[in-house]
Amino acid sequence: MPSLILVRHGQSQWNLENRFTGWWDVDLTEKGVAEAIAAGELLATAGLLPTIAFTSLQKRAIKTLHLALEACGRLWIPEIKDWRLNERHYGGLTGLDKAETAALHGDEQVKIWRRSFDVPPPPLEAGGEFDLAADPRYAGIAIPATESLKLTIERVLPYWESTIRPQLAAGETVIVVAHGNSLRALVKHLSNISDADITELEIPTGQPIIYDFDEALVPGERHYLKDR
Amino acid sequence: MPSLILVRHGQSQWNLENRFTGWWDVDLTEKGVAEAIAAGELLATAGLLPTIAFTSLQKRAIKTLHLALEACGRLWIPEIKDWRLNERHYGGLTGLDKAETAALHGDEQVKIWRRSFDVPPPPLEAGGEFDLAADPRYAGIAIPATESLKLTIERVLPYWESTIRPQLAAGETVIVVAHGNSLRALVKHLSNISDADITELEIPTGQPIIYDFDEALVPGERHYLKDR
Repeated sequence: MPSLILVRHGQSQWNLENRFTGWWDVDLTEKGVAEAIAAGELLATAGLLPTIAFTSLQKRAIKTLHLALEACGRLWIPEIKDWRLNERHYGGLTGLDKAETAALHGDEQVKIWRRSFDVPPPPLEAGGEFDLAADPRYAGIAIPATESLKLTIERVLPYWESTIRPQLAAGETVIVVAHGNSLRALVKHLSNISDADITELEIPTGQPIIYDFDEALVPGERHYLKDR
Repeated sequence: MPSLILVRHGQSQWNLENRFTGWWDVDLTEKGVAEAIAAGELLATAGLLPTIAFTSLQKRAIKTLHLALEACGRLWIPEIKDWRLNERHYGGLTGLDKAETAALHGDEQVKIWRRSFDVPPPPLEAGGEFDLAADPRYAGIAIPATESLKLTIERVLPYWESTIRPQLAAGETVIVVAHGNSLRALVKHLSNISDADITELEIPTGQPIIYDFDEALVPGERHYLKDR
């Protein structure tokens, strides 16, 4: 039976600094590197070895994938990167410290931006420090100025349907290494979670989440590999 | 104008130990890691930034690619791995120390195996320590039991024509991270080197070799990026 392995990237420098990251291309910390390797070792121990990999265009996810694949002896599998698996774009909050933002705008407003399903943060200022318009990796892509979780889902799910799910249908063991909100999009869909509940679901860094599929490609319960 | 960047993987453990490696999946040494990073830094300094990557199914090449791409800020480009870019299969010499092999078979015989164009070494013993028949990365592939340089070329060049060259034709800046003999195959073709001369051409580890192509996709002179 085909299996799906979801892994959120290991701790990034801005996870550690408690700053809104979104599409900004922040590196892993040493702890994040260790988490990525541990994720791969867990796959090796479980004998759950991916045969094809998907990740975003962001280095914290790509490096987590590479470290995990090396740790389970699978560096050689095909790897497909796509912006649709990127983190939710945090708009004008990108780069801001979460505590400072709360002090400025109030806890309630920040909670809405962080936890509402369909209210995006203010748009990113064009031409500012975090503008990605000149980044060649996004050439030809309509880079969002901000995204709610709802908008994130609206780009993740079509990619799931068109590109990832057919690999499971072909019997592959698929690993997706992505981000808190792009993975929320997949978990919401696969575990049928409500709009209200999904915003509260935490996806921990570096912990493989597993879905086993039946022959009709219906997913079973999700579980953490560490709990198996 | 499209450019092609060829990089031989950094020093591997068996380069260091002077053992025949071929298709055996040996890791990089610390020096090999440093060479890979330096290759990427050289690309960054030259502003010669790859837009698509090809490599083999062997970790010394894949890791060299990943380290070089990270060093030039290009981890996010598409990456395609194929066994046709693997090192020449060294047959029954796989794993043997080069000096011991010379002591056993004589310098002349070893020179023929290493440097003749079309004489393959003795075949690898099936079921032995270095048999790859059970390696899942080669499932569905007719794994050779041994290869001469000629046989290596016969699998590298069709892949070049069918898959790599069209990317150059599309204007991409292509990086190929591969092995001494799979790169000899490409250099022989692109620089029109004779059968006799190609076996003497050394491809140094971790040194980007550049070909610039004209509009008719005719390659210019090859040169080392470090000499630019």
